[in-house]
Amino acid sequence: MCRWLAYSGSPIMLEDIVYKPDHSLIDQSLHSKLGIETTNGDGFGIGWYGHHDTPAIFKEIGPAWNNRNLRELTSHLRSRMFFAHIRASTGSAVQQTNCHPFRHGRWLWMHNGMIAGFHQIRRELALAVSPGLFSCIEGSTDSELMFFLALSLGLEEDPPGAVARMVGLVEETGQRNGVENPMQMTVAVCNGETLWAFRYSTEGRSRSLFHSADIEGLRALYPGNALVRTASDDARLIVSEPLGDVPEVWIEVPEASYAMVHRSRNEIRPFSPAAVATRS
Amino acid sequence: MCRWLAYSGSPIMLEDIVYKPDHSLIDQSLHSKLGIETTNGDGFGIGWYGHHDTPAIFKEIGPAWNNRNLRELTSHLRSRMFFAHIRASTGSAVQQTNCHPFRHGRWLWMHNGMIAGFHQIRRELALAVSPGLFSCIEGSTDSELMFFLALSLGLEEDPPGAVARMVGLVEETGQRNGVENPMQMTVAVCNGETLWAFRYSTEGRSRSLFHSADIEGLRALYPGNALVRTASDDARLIVSEPLGDVPEVWIEVPEASYAMVHRSRNEIRPFSPAAVATRS
Amino acid sequence: MCRWLAYSGSPIMLEDIVYKPDHSLIDQSLHSKLGIETTNGDGFGIGWYGHHDTPAIFKEIGPAWNNRNLRELTSHLRSRMFFAHIRASTGSAVQQTNCHPFRHGRWLWMHNGMIAGFHQIRRELALAVSPGLFSCIEGSTDSELMFFLALSLGLEEDPPGAVARMVGLVEETGQRNGVENPMQMTVAVCNGETLWAFRYSTEGRSRSLFHSADIEGLRALYPGNALVRTASDDARLIVSEPLGDVPEVWIEVPEASYAMVHRSRNEIRPFSPAAVATRS
Amino acid sequence: MCRWLAYSGSPIMLEDIVYKPDHSLIDQSLHSKLGIETTNGDGFGIGWYGHHDTPAIFKEIGPAWNNRNLRELTSHLRSRMFFAHIRASTGSAVQQTNCHPFRHGRWLWMHNGMIAGFHQIRRELALAVSPGLFSCIEGSTDSELMFFLALSLGLEEDPPGAVARMVGLVEETGQRNGVENPMQMTVAVCNGETLWAFRYSTEGRSRSLFHSADIEGLRALYPGNALVRTASDDARLIVSEPLGDVPEVWIEVPEASYAMVHRSRNEIRPFSPAAVATRS
Repeated sequence: MCRWLAYSGSPIMLEDIVYKPDHSLIDQSLHSKLGIETTNGDGFGIGWYGHHDTPAIFKEIGPAWNNRNLRELTSHLRSRMFFAHIRASTGSAVQQTNCHPFRHGRWLWMHNGMIAGFHQIRRELALAVSPGLFSCIEGSTDSELMFFLALSLGLEEDPPGAVARMVGLVEETGQRNGVENPMQMTVAVCNGETLWAFRYSTEGRSRSLFHSADIEGLRALYPGNALVRTASDDARLIVSEPLGDVPEVWIEVPEASYAMVHRSRNEIRPFSPAAVATRS
Repeated sequence: MCRWLAYSGSPIMLEDIVYKPDHSLIDQSLHSKLGIETTNGDGFGIGWYGHHDTPAIFKEIGPAWNNRNLRELTSHLRSRMFFAHIRASTGSAVQQTNCHPFRHGRWLWMHNGMIAGFHQIRRELALAVSPGLFSCIEGSTDSELMFFLALSLGLEEDPPGAVARMVGLVEETGQRNGVENPMQMTVAVCNGETLWAFRYSTEGRSRSLFHSADIEGLRALYPGNALVRTASDDARLIVSEPLGDVPEVWIEVPEASYAMVHRSRNEIRPFSPAAVATRS
Repeated sequence: MCRWLAYSGSPIMLEDIVYKPDHSLIDQSLHSKLGIETTNGDGFGIGWYGHHDTPAIFKEIGPAWNNRNLRELTSHLRSRMFFAHIRASTGSAVQQTNCHPFRHGRWLWMHNGMIAGFHQIRRELALAVSPGLFSCIEGSTDSELMFFLALSLGLEEDPPGAVARMVGLVEETGQRNGVENPMQMTVAVCNGETLWAFRYSTEGRSRSLFHSADIEGLRALYPGNALVRTASDDARLIVSEPLGDVPEVWIEVPEASYAMVHRSRNEIRPFSPAAVATRS
Repeated sequence: MCRWLAYSGSPIMLEDIVYKPDHSLIDQSLHSKLGIETTNGDGFGIGWYGHHDTPAIFKEIGPAWNNRNLRELTSHLRSRMFFAHIRASTGSAVQQTNCHPFRHGRWLWMHNGMIAGFHQIRRELALAVSPGLFSCIEGSTDSELMFFLALSLGLEEDPPGAVARMVGLVEETGQRNGVENPMQMTVAVCNGETLWAFRYSTEGRSRSLFHSADIEGLRALYPGNALVRTASDDARLIVSEPLGDVPEVWIEVPEASYAMVHRSRNEIRPFSPAAVATRS
């Protein structure tokens, strides 16, 4: 459906991660290897933390591979935490408000996957969004709605808990409406300080997700590799599919788990949906 | 906010109405005289009935005045009933799904105006959309939501009644939430056979709306006028602001009324909002 | 680089050719089988003859596969002669003026292939364009320049001769500048009455090109096939790669030859470049 | 035709100049006061110097006033020298390669005005571009061609001299072809170190151009003014029309003269076209 990457570490020029590695995200926009579709050309977006607490976002509806503005920006922007996403629409409109990452205050969110039977349960899920947040919804994707559900369920206080409740709610709603495997997702969310990345699907066959290994260790083994050489010791990457040509850089995020990256620390923890108290 | 025109009559090349008259809709996209904004450059759309019962739509997010595709299409398309709309956004995203006209089955809908306090009451209004229609909503405008509310309230069976109920619902919801003058609208809706155009605002100061006078009569008076000469005897136009240079062509649609055009017949009737039975 | 199709025959809804067949041009925009690139997502265009002698064109810079306007238009437009093209840029800007087909008066032109070493010889070729036509050049592609060279060399009087001279000029200019195999092309050109399609490359290994077989004969053999059933007896198609699922529909245009389609007549003739008299 | 601004000074957030002042460039895109057109909605661009010697550029074909990416970028980018431009096309295509600023190596160029009779003399001017630069031309504007002519005539060594020769060439070519007043321009050009801004027209009635007064002096007079307060002592601005609400900030660049800004120095010098040696 989509491909994405998330970076946390010492400030780095975005192009060093987004364009320069072999099989970069730009290459994946034309030739994804592990995605459902080889082409991810229905829009793209980047979100990055710079001078402010609030991140900036840049989104376009054309393909990433031919976008000159993206090429320009990533070669002039440095950031210590950023998201990049390329989209393959499963039918919803190709418009900026459907491009990832989504932003709310200091938070960024992006997603690969889908809510099965979304048309059937979209209304019920929309009603579960906190009334104060409802009018912030601008697009028509399941991904954005998942974000606003997670925000409604406490994302800003307890990200893993809120994502667990969001998934629980989607699964409960879907199953009640006869949808067999409601949730399929890899999701990244961050607040400028910490980054969480979830891999989960109801059926237990989630889309691919990888995190980077310890760069310091890799540097000794691959001193000549560009990606390894460019990255700082504290650099941590989470990606839909591996970049570069050194397989040892990448460790699969296990099924039903999530990564939490804070500075140079990267922990992997189990993930399971949580029940949401019945609404009156 | 926006400008629009609706045509019903013998098949005519779209450019004869959209481009060729003095102060055409294209001119209004740069130099509106009666609109709130002089510039209407936040997207545009046309909808037309051709070979099928279902109308076609063509929408773009750039300004109408520099769009070459619009120029091409209108000079090669003939239609017996069509809508054209230019948009001035009041803040909602500039995207195709926010451009008018909106379509559902055989029906087209377009709007100039706004629901005051929309962000406050958007959720409550969205909940009043029929569950079966909710997932058809693709954009984020008040205009599209008004359309789906009208559809939910019987537009396909009784257009004037459904629009009256939609307005009643919006006013009741707005006023209950402390919005003083919730509704400001000129709306056109058609099904390929009949065209209705409403002019109404809660405060009784609605945006401008005009319908064309009897063309046959004008032809005798202005034999050399291009617009009058091009139009067929059964041509009926409804416009946000007058086209051409013959003021006698245009008759104001009175405050709180609507026009109903069916073939060469054009009736003006009073319009007032209707109460909607309280939902359980 | 690109994929295209050209239709001549009884008026047909464009979608019947552009969208409906298996492996349609829209499918080729994502999954080309015979092209250099599998993805052709750098813009598209259609050109069609309708009510006027001059054809209309509709071009967009996004991919064809997700373009709703293209879907709408092709399902409401009928034409007796039309071109459709999907682009894979080899570096030149993604902009409408670089999308095919190109138009001049009654003429349409589209191209798949490239002039090798174009950056080196672009200026010299541009100088060979007739001064009166030079200012009509709006884009930066080799394809548009080939069109204006052909027009300068007599396209409107003798299409095969002018294309032969254009190729001769490009080859002579390229070779004089040390370019080994200057020309690689399949080109379609028409004037609303007759359609010519050329397959040629300096190295004798041209991109794929096919023309349709006699539809009347196919109808007897494949009465249930949708493409065969939809097409009229006089329908003639020329395509970069076969549509539909009946291989017998398609006959390869031989290397170094061209097809000339006029009404139901389709002749294949040899093609070879012609020398151009030295300019003073 | 267009409106632009150029900044040189201590690094500043782009939005402080582009968005925040009263009657900002964004406001001018809808409501220009001194331009030929009140609306400048046919694309825009910014160019800025950041971490590299080579500037970055960001261009879009829609209007500036509704572009969310521009809003995002200018609120996260700081620069010590930047250009911003909003375009009102006089007919040439609305495409990124026709948007300003244009870039070549370290150089940026933007323009307001026009070459009269451009279609007539475009070919002759194009031939005067250095053969090595010809293939860098991507768009179809007079503005870009003026840039490449200036580059061909020594812009990188002697900017005022090269611009004088470019104007001389355009005037000589125009007049030889019967064009009465060939040149109308305000042009800004910079290399990341120094900024030049020219005001000239053959008829001696050039478009408006202003430079900022000494900020240090203004600060004492208008301590509460936002624009004055935000700008550093070494800030120098050149603009098509005044920003903000303090008229004393702005000094008209005289007819037939140019400003040269280097650090805090701003000199105004006379400008006159120079003859170019006849080409063989």
